[in-house]
Amino acid sequence: MSTKIVIYDTTLRDGSQAEGISFSLEDMVKIARRLDEAGFDYVEGGWPGSNPKHEEFFQSIQKIPLKRTKIAAFGSTRRASLSAADDPNLRALVESGAPVATIFGKSWDLHVTDALRIPLEQNIEMIYDSVKFLKEHCEEVFFDAEHFFDGWKANPAYAISALKAAEAAGADCVILCDTNGGCIPSKIQDALNAVFAEIKCPVGIHAHNDSETAVANSIVAVQAGACQVQGTINGFGERCGNANLCSIVPTLRLKLGLDCLSDEAVANMTSLSKYVDEVANVVPNDKMPFVGRSAFAHKAGIHVDAVMKQPLTYEHIRPEQVGNARRVLVSELAGASSIVMKAERYGVDLNKKSPETKDVLDQITRLENQGYSFEGAEASFELLLQKSVGTYHKLFDLKSFRVMVEQRGTDPEPTTEATLRVVVDGQEMLTVAEGDGPVHALDNALRKALVQFYPEQIKHIKLTDFKVRVLDAKEATAAGVRATVESTDGKSSWNTVGVSANIIEASWHALVDSVEYGLLKMMAKENGS
Amino acid sequence: MSTKIVIYDTTLRDGSQAEGISFSLEDMVKIARRLDEAGFDYVEGGWPGSNPKHEEFFQSIQKIPLKRTKIAAFGSTRRASLSAADDPNLRALVESGAPVATIFGKSWDLHVTDALRIPLEQNIEMIYDSVKFLKEHCEEVFFDAEHFFDGWKANPAYAISALKAAEAAGADCVILCDTNGGCIPSKIQDALNAVFAEIKCPVGIHAHNDSETAVANSIVAVQAGACQVQGTINGFGERCGNANLCSIVPTLRLKLGLDCLSDEAVANMTSLSKYVDEVANVVPNDKMPFVGRSAFAHKAGIHVDAVMKQPLTYEHIRPEQVGNARRVLVSELAGASSIVMKAERYGVDLNKKSPETKDVLDQITRLENQGYSFEGAEASFELLLQKSVGTYHKLFDLKSFRVMVEQRGTDPEPTTEATLRVVVDGQEMLTVAEGDGPVHALDNALRKALVQFYPEQIKHIKLTDFKVRVLDAKEATAAGVRATVESTDGKSSWNTVGVSANIIEASWHALVDSVEYGLLKMMAKENGS
Repeated sequence: MSTKIVIYDTTLRDGSQAEGISFSLEDMVKIARRLDEAGFDYVEGGWPGSNPKHEEFFQSIQKIPLKRTKIAAFGSTRRASLSAADDPNLRALVESGAPVATIFGKSWDLHVTDALRIPLEQNIEMIYDSVKFLKEHCEEVFFDAEHFFDGWKANPAYAISALKAAEAAGADCVILCDTNGGCIPSKIQDALNAVFAEIKCPVGIHAHNDSETAVANSIVAVQAGACQVQGTINGFGERCGNANLCSIVPTLRLKLGLDCLSDEAVANMTSLSKYVDEVANVVPNDKMPFVGRSAFAHKAGIHVDAVMKQPLTYEHIRPEQVGNARRVLVSELAGASSIVMKAERYGVDLNKKSPETKDVLDQITRLENQGYSFEGAEASFELLLQKSVGTYHKLFDLKSFRVMVEQRGTDPEPTTEATLRVVVDGQEMLTVAEGDGPVHALDNALRKALVQFYPEQIKHIKLTDFKVRVLDAKEATAAGVRATVESTDGKSSWNTVGVSANIIEASWHALVDSVEYGLLKMMAKENGS
Repeated sequence: MSTKIVIYDTTLRDGSQAEGISFSLEDMVKIARRLDEAGFDYVEGGWPGSNPKHEEFFQSIQKIPLKRTKIAAFGSTRRASLSAADDPNLRALVESGAPVATIFGKSWDLHVTDALRIPLEQNIEMIYDSVKFLKEHCEEVFFDAEHFFDGWKANPAYAISALKAAEAAGADCVILCDTNGGCIPSKIQDALNAVFAEIKCPVGIHAHNDSETAVANSIVAVQAGACQVQGTINGFGERCGNANLCSIVPTLRLKLGLDCLSDEAVANMTSLSKYVDEVANVVPNDKMPFVGRSAFAHKAGIHVDAVMKQPLTYEHIRPEQVGNARRVLVSELAGASSIVMKAERYGVDLNKKSPETKDVLDQITRLENQGYSFEGAEASFELLLQKSVGTYHKLFDLKSFRVMVEQRGTDPEPTTEATLRVVVDGQEMLTVAEGDGPVHALDNALRKALVQFYPEQIKHIKLTDFKVRVLDAKEATAAGVRATVESTDGKSSWNTVGVSANIIEASWHALVDSVEYGLLKMMAKENGS
């Protein structure tokens, strides 16, 4: 096993092949700078030969002094009909000004005969010529052996001859690609062993996640001797994604003790993951290992109890090592320990035996029997906690509401109108508003009532998600309904919950908690408390 | 490597530890039945000793004849202070009536000394006694060695002595658990080799995904000799989830050629995955390997081109093998084939080129762009099909509706009232009804209008489930909403769908389809057609 493992990020190139992801030029530059700060060795910027936006990226990034990262330009081996020096694609790599050129070439005989439709030997010459030409103009040249593992299975001698051609032409690293993502770890292991018997130059791994084994395959390859890992932040990539560097880097560093990114960079992995999701405008996957919001969230009472005594019991690493945090979920499965632990996070000092703890626990049990679920509604839980310990400060009092949805034959859209009677600061307000649906109309009416009292605060609070769950299917439309609302003030977000037999009332409760929580939070901050 | 691999599903127990997942009793029964149909060997139903809902599940499931699946009840080894026969938890396992009991016990010395706080030897006795007691009362007993891999690393002899105690007491399988999910494949491999040197009884694997290697670890364990794999559908589970059976089963069957589920069951894996997401009310992860919507979606031009010539070039398996589909630019012809195939199922004879097929295809494309999904709403699809081919017979015509929800300060429950104007058989009816919520009130008002025309039929139709999903989370309360309704006539059940920016209107469309479909179905039967 090499002790220095080079990390090569291809979020901007292979990652942008993911469904729903499209980076602007600014996005690309932002991500590259952030990866440089984190100390990534290489960042692949794109295909200068085939994409004008990528070409611009290479121009822009040259003007920015990078601390550590080397930028790589991506392309393919020369065309069969042209010499390397005449190939516009290879010239574009050189002209991009990137110090590193990475080119892919065929190593699976089927692709040579069926896709390129040229003799097998000619493909080997194309690899040799292309690497040799680039080596004359770039600091470093990497060769991505596309479909290496499938090629090696079909025709091992041919697949390895492709690597040998790149090596002979001076490639600084040959990267074995599981392009279709179909490999399992044992196959990676066998292939790497065969490669190391014949190849002396550094070897890298580039895995895809179609078998849900991309991370494992990358780690197995490193253990077998690979010294470069190619992947993407959050596993972005075509189909099921590329190997996820947010899982691979912490594993290499924390579990195998290898030299890749610094401990400090690993401790910023959660923030890096969130940043890239934010730039890509992608909803974060809470379940993501290491960096996801649920990665260290405990629900079962038995687990919560044990984690409080000794985190090692149900955590494979300390969450701080990757910049993440432990979360205790309040649920029917939890007990007094979780209440105490949660209260602590909100600066409320409780102990297992105190009457407030019992009061909170009783209320939660009662509410959960009604269908409440606080595990995804931390803000409603915090309000309940404040009410129990007496730190809650009421901002408004609801007297009544009315919602009307009406559809007339000729109108394609129904009309929705909400009317509210609210007392704020001793003053009774009657407001009415329309909306696309009942919750939207209620939200608008509530804002109308509150805007003159909290003009600055209310405009920062935005509803970002709204979910509904029917609780007991047996009674169908007469069953209970649980609504959860997510809001944000632009910096952080919070979730609240409401339950009722009536979908409108359930949504209303969640909405009221959400707005009240946001206002209280901002006012606490303004008061410096 | 064993050739028969037993698949043990713990979606209902360990899967329900996932953040945001909470199954009702009906959900649990539905999923168990579906897993039985798919041929799963074991389905773990929950903890009868500690959760009343789980206890009810064991009672309900006994009344249902299962084809293949054996139900397992879950619990822990006896308490230190009680004999096995006196332990209420172990007795609950026996009394659950489940043919299989699975208990977990400690195999990591740290947990025995620091969490249980008892002598090491006493824990071994607890394992032995508990397994022995259960073996006297249950058909099969499985022993889950909690934290086995961490335990084996810390104190290999002790970890293995825990397995030996279970083996000696007659356990039918000992399952090695990576409870914290911190293992990488090489560690799994080494531990299994050590276990097989000392244990003769069957060995299983239970992996968690905290290192993003749960699927790989399960496969490596099977290759090392494990013959039982425990996991969940879609990888549901605490923190980062359990090992995902939707990836493991296709790999074992299609790549390693092992006997686990049938080829037919593997070919239904995508539909099973969607079904469980639907029941759990979880937004499907498009990137999920094998079964995700993007798993065989091609974006790069080069890839699309190559895949059209030879799918093997960028697909690791044929998507049909897991019931998934390739998504390129949606080809008219491919779309038409599926419509023809579907129509056939409803006894409607279409061909690819007929104008009706094109009409249905156009409508579906338009509706799906609006957010409709006919996957879980076959009755709405059938109505659409009938309208296109001209076999649809309109039963009533809706002129207008109005829903009002009103809450006054003193009343704890809001009043909900729905008013409808409907033309049935040329006669205009104006009806009004109350309900627990808007959909309930609309349902009641519609029944009032229809009861004099279809008195016998309408009383047999009952709404059994109602679900709501917000379609675009970004715009929150102003986003689109998809409502699905499930109804039954006591013999069979059907699902319908409605979409709108307004939750009331979306529910209303689904409700109307549901009632109309039920009436048409009964009348067709009465007419003998």
